[in-house]
Amino acid sequence: MPSQPLYLQLAGHYRQAMEAGTLRPGDRMPALRVLSERHGVSLSTALQTCRHLESLGWLEARPRSGYFVQSSVRPRLEPVPEPRAVLPNPAQYVGIHERVSSVVVRGRLAPVRFNLGGAAASAPLYPCEALRAASVRALRREPALWGQSVPHTGHPAFCAAVAKHLLSSGIVTAPREVIVTHGGTEALALALRAVGRPGDVVAIESPAYYGLLQLLESLGLRALEIPTSGHTGLSLEALDLAAASYEGIRAVVFVPHLQNPLGATMPAERRRQLVQWCEAHDIVLIEDDTFGPLYDADTPLPAAKSFDTTGNVIHCASLHKVLAPGMRLGWVLPGRWRSRIEMLKFTQSRGNEVLSQLAAADFIGSGSFERHLQRLRARLRRHRDWMAAAIAAGFPQGTRLSQPRGGVHLWLELPPGTPSESVFDAALHEGIRVAPGLMFSNSRRFDHCLRINCGLPPTPELGQALRRLGRIVAEAR
Amino acid sequence: MPSQPLYLQLAGHYRQAMEAGTLRPGDRMPALRVLSERHGVSLSTALQTCRHLESLGWLEARPRSGYFVQSSVRPRLEPVPEPRAVLPNPAQYVGIHERVSSVVVRGRLAPVRFNLGGAAASAPLYPCEALRAASVRALRREPALWGQSVPHTGHPAFCAAVAKHLLSSGIVTAPREVIVTHGGTEALALALRAVGRPGDVVAIESPAYYGLLQLLESLGLRALEIPTSGHTGLSLEALDLAAASYEGIRAVVFVPHLQNPLGATMPAERRRQLVQWCEAHDIVLIEDDTFGPLYDADTPLPAAKSFDTTGNVIHCASLHKVLAPGMRLGWVLPGRWRSRIEMLKFTQSRGNEVLSQLAAADFIGSGSFERHLQRLRARLRRHRDWMAAAIAAGFPQGTRLSQPRGGVHLWLELPPGTPSESVFDAALHEGIRVAPGLMFSNSRRFDHCLRINCGLPPTPELGQALRRLGRIVAEAR
Repeated sequence: MPSQPLYLQLAGHYRQAMEAGTLRPGDRMPALRVLSERHGVSLSTALQTCRHLESLGWLEARPRSGYFVQSSVRPRLEPVPEPRAVLPNPAQYVGIHERVSSVVVRGRLAPVRFNLGGAAASAPLYPCEALRAASVRALRREPALWGQSVPHTGHPAFCAAVAKHLLSSGIVTAPREVIVTHGGTEALALALRAVGRPGDVVAIESPAYYGLLQLLESLGLRALEIPTSGHTGLSLEALDLAAASYEGIRAVVFVPHLQNPLGATMPAERRRQLVQWCEAHDIVLIEDDTFGPLYDADTPLPAAKSFDTTGNVIHCASLHKVLAPGMRLGWVLPGRWRSRIEMLKFTQSRGNEVLSQLAAADFIGSGSFERHLQRLRARLRRHRDWMAAAIAAGFPQGTRLSQPRGGVHLWLELPPGTPSESVFDAALHEGIRVAPGLMFSNSRRFDHCLRINCGLPPTPELGQALRRLGRIVAEAR
Repeated sequence: MPSQPLYLQLAGHYRQAMEAGTLRPGDRMPALRVLSERHGVSLSTALQTCRHLESLGWLEARPRSGYFVQSSVRPRLEPVPEPRAVLPNPAQYVGIHERVSSVVVRGRLAPVRFNLGGAAASAPLYPCEALRAASVRALRREPALWGQSVPHTGHPAFCAAVAKHLLSSGIVTAPREVIVTHGGTEALALALRAVGRPGDVVAIESPAYYGLLQLLESLGLRALEIPTSGHTGLSLEALDLAAASYEGIRAVVFVPHLQNPLGATMPAERRRQLVQWCEAHDIVLIEDDTFGPLYDADTPLPAAKSFDTTGNVIHCASLHKVLAPGMRLGWVLPGRWRSRIEMLKFTQSRGNEVLSQLAAADFIGSGSFERHLQRLRARLRRHRDWMAAAIAAGFPQGTRLSQPRGGVHLWLELPPGTPSESVFDAALHEGIRVAPGLMFSNSRRFDHCLRINCGLPPTPELGQALRRLGRIVAEAR
């Protein structure tokens, strides 16, 4: 890692203290003079440190009193517990599609006033106006744009912007190595089609995003659900145990930042171990970094791909969660499967349209992207904290709540025995859509869980809806 | 068919006469007065008839002399002969990808001055400016467009425009039945994934578009190549023979208009027979109507889908050849595989971006679409005739040429024994890219053929390039 400015180092130090509970919500931060003397930095660096932590939502400034650790709801609800390292069962996902689809269809058909079932921030949090202007500029610069065939693996300007963006994750790649895809979904589909054949076993996190479960089923792949921590992600110990018990795991799919639905972020050192472990076992590692730039820090942690020296890691990511839900822009760094992934992309859908690539490249290249991400993280943090507080206030005793360091979703374990499908149906009846736990696993171990979108801005109506949801949970037991 | 205006009926009558050779190039059309008396129509209807045939490129007006049948190059080169109804061999396309890819890669790496290897008209033939303006309008009407998630199966405005557009092919469908895809390629990929499993046999035309061969191989499907006429398309007799000999054909893929590469258009009555035959044999019919609106008539022939009463026909089409190569807009009418195709689209790539859908819907709804198509057909006809004449003038004796009634490609059978791969390499060396016949079949029966893009405007340089190509062919024997 390059050496950080002093104020960021100091902010990291105090942030760890807050995360560890050494500094607790409501505590007063040391005065600027104290900080300056204690750490041998200038007063202006001490001030910069506090302002930075304030911008991230960790501190609040009170007039004439100094900085205080922001109140948090964390003491109120217990965190989601660690999983047991049980031996998983390879499941052929027969039936997962029907179960998930039945939930999705019911959700679509019902009139919904509060959609907490998705995993995106609301439109005003994205730079719509800047992207609109960039689109108009691109149409002016290239008036014959719609009349020309599209480049197969992506527009060079966008590939260059992606390559530059990936530097913040420690990935050094040539623009020509980037294959642009129709969103992160297609990136993942191409990666899985490239390495797996029907019947192959793929190890995944448990719980996992239901889109991945559907994708595996549609490709005839079998999923092996590996226990996953809400804090550190995929359990490497459980993965090792699984590999010793089952021959022929073909690939591992994992989400490095803010795993969907748990919110876990795997520490950098474990990522390095995972890369090495996969290589030693001749198992492909597919990294799905959909949420990296939403991680509450100035830079994401180094990607698994950054530790890859042999091309065994396929890195997938996209812009829909972090820049523009309406742009279906994803990409894949194909490692040593380049020619196969390129062929599959060509036969499956050809290249992406050029306009959104040009507009996104324009925005990413302008420096506005970094400022947008800082603002987005800060606003999401406020939304998330507010929603966690509302849940803590309105849900029954025994509810447990994830503590993600960023992102757009919260994971709830309801009191044991609460059926999430009944909660889903009853909430839908009141115009509130949630994502029930049964969508995220074939094991039915999460049937008492809920994923809730926390990317929506706080409003009194949303507060009421969450209280109503809490009552539905209490009544469903 | 709805009853046509008088002048169109009359134009159809004379067109048939010209196609049958009753009226030959250079012949004088009967005078307007004669037409009026002979057919009992007004003078103005007779004039309208001649002007219409002129706009389609069949007649030319000579000052003070009346209308004459336009010169045609057809007498010069023999047409491509009919195929023999041999029994096909189901081939597992192992290797087709490598062969095709090797050609594609060589073509991409070499500097190309004349790209005759594609199958699209040049950018100036598409309404770039109108689509640009429609895009800017859409961005103004929906400023938060890039910030909002996309609808899964297509934007309602675009689905409605597609449903309206399909009326001209005799297809009556509700907008909600249309599933928008990333181009015709994804439409076809979804159709094949929905109905076939690895190892299944799919009957296809021979020769067929190489993208289809690659797609089948990538899905693990086996292709059964059915002899196909350059005039009437897929041979139903050969298909029947194949079905009697091979158990378990799962689907038939066919191109109703201007088949790629032969240029064949299947007559309406044979389409009806094909639909009924597939139904009787419990074989899915996949119709790929990429080129329909380029067929040289005011309306395309009725689609196979228009004869479908049970949902056994999956209809795929797209706008890239007919409206905008840079918009990756296709669609599928899924028949009775709706839920499976919808699920596959969701797991494979999610919904399409909205902007191009809105701009295309705006254009299609404006009435400009019909005018654009008329102009495009007339210009393509001139380009095609010019190129056919240039080929006839410059290629060796024994070359045979397809006679498509529209579209953007010509199919050449070179004198027996001419290796198209050598021609491809030698032409590429001179900066001319063509599509060699070996790309279009696994049977190697077309290794002496070439597909040439005739969507480019005539220029002296292109004329020279075609003469150069003719010499390369002559030298390659």
